[in-house]
Amino acid sequence: MKSLPLSKVYQLLEPGPVVLLTTAIKGRTNVMVMSWHMMLEFTPPLIACVVSNRNHSYAALRATKECVIALPARKLAATVVKIGNCSGRRIDKFEAFGLTALPAARVAPPLIGECFANIECKVIDTRFVDAYGLFVLEAVKAWRDPVQKNPRTIHHRGHGVFTVDGEIVRFKSGKK
Amino acid sequence: MKSLPLSKVYQLLEPGPVVLLTTAIKGRTNVMVMSWHMMLEFTPPLIACVVSNRNHSYAALRATKECVIALPARKLAATVVKIGNCSGRRIDKFEAFGLTALPAARVAPPLIGECFANIECKVIDTRFVDAYGLFVLEAVKAWRDPVQKNPRTIHHRGHGVFTVDGEIVRFKSGKK
Repeated sequence: MKSLPLSKVYQLLEPGPVVLLTTAIKGRTNVMVMSWHMMLEFTPPLIACVVSNRNHSYAALRATKECVIALPARKLAATVVKIGNCSGRRIDKFEAFGLTALPAARVAPPLIGECFANIECKVIDTRFVDAYGLFVLEAVKAWRDPVQKNPRTIHHRGHGVFTVDGEIVRFKSGKK
Repeated sequence: MKSLPLSKVYQLLEPGPVVLLTTAIKGRTNVMVMSWHMMLEFTPPLIACVVSNRNHSYAALRATKECVIALPARKLAATVVKIGNCSGRRIDKFEAFGLTALPAARVAPPLIGECFANIECKVIDTRFVDAYGLFVLEAVKAWRDPVQKNPRTIHHRGHGVFTVDGEIVRFKSGKK
């Protein structure tokens, strides 16, 4: 993984892809699938996401206030579905699904080696967790796999149906 | 536009498309482009979105607590970019870009006739507006244009670059 400037984090998340979220507590890692996330600010990059107290990752995220957001490309779609259909309460998902846990630089939860980008995050605001499961994260370090060129992300439409990135269109824009 | 069950709203927004947000205040309508949004809850459908106080729509949304989220398909992409590159402070965007304002059922801001879906929303929580420009919306009525079959949405990657929905892949899923 190569370092990616934090100013580019929004370009990864703004299109709304399915992402994976890793956590770690007491030496145990976990990974969950997440589609409910959005950017909140460009600089520093702030991200809002929903992790429900029904998710096994909730306790670790709330207690450690650290996570990694990892971006899977199309080729990982079947694995993503499997990760989403089971709970870390019962199994070690990294082992079960052959995911490579790489050490992060600024947080304890691991990067996922098979993902084309990884964003290390710290929870900076928990005031909306009780009401909505909404965590506010600050991206503190980001990584990009230079080997995966032009990865196509997947987007969840519900009930296991995903759209994959297709055509890219470019317009002149005065804004970010 | 035909009525769409509120239980299907998340299927529109969870994939992360670029949307349009309409507001109305003192008889003046406006429309802005928005990519920073996410689902917060299935039932009732709750949506979080970021509308900055630098956006002209901010004042109307904050004061009236009503908006419509409209979903443009690929064919509207060039118009979406134009809407995003100017301010309602100076022009009537509905008129300038030939958008059809249709009356909504539950809120004052208009639906957009050219969009394939419209979601009428009420602001239900403003506690995070000052900190992050984050509004919590409840979808109170949704509409679908039956004429636009299989619309492909657009997703913003920054700097006027968009990806368009491509391939659809289906997996067995135990969850929503």
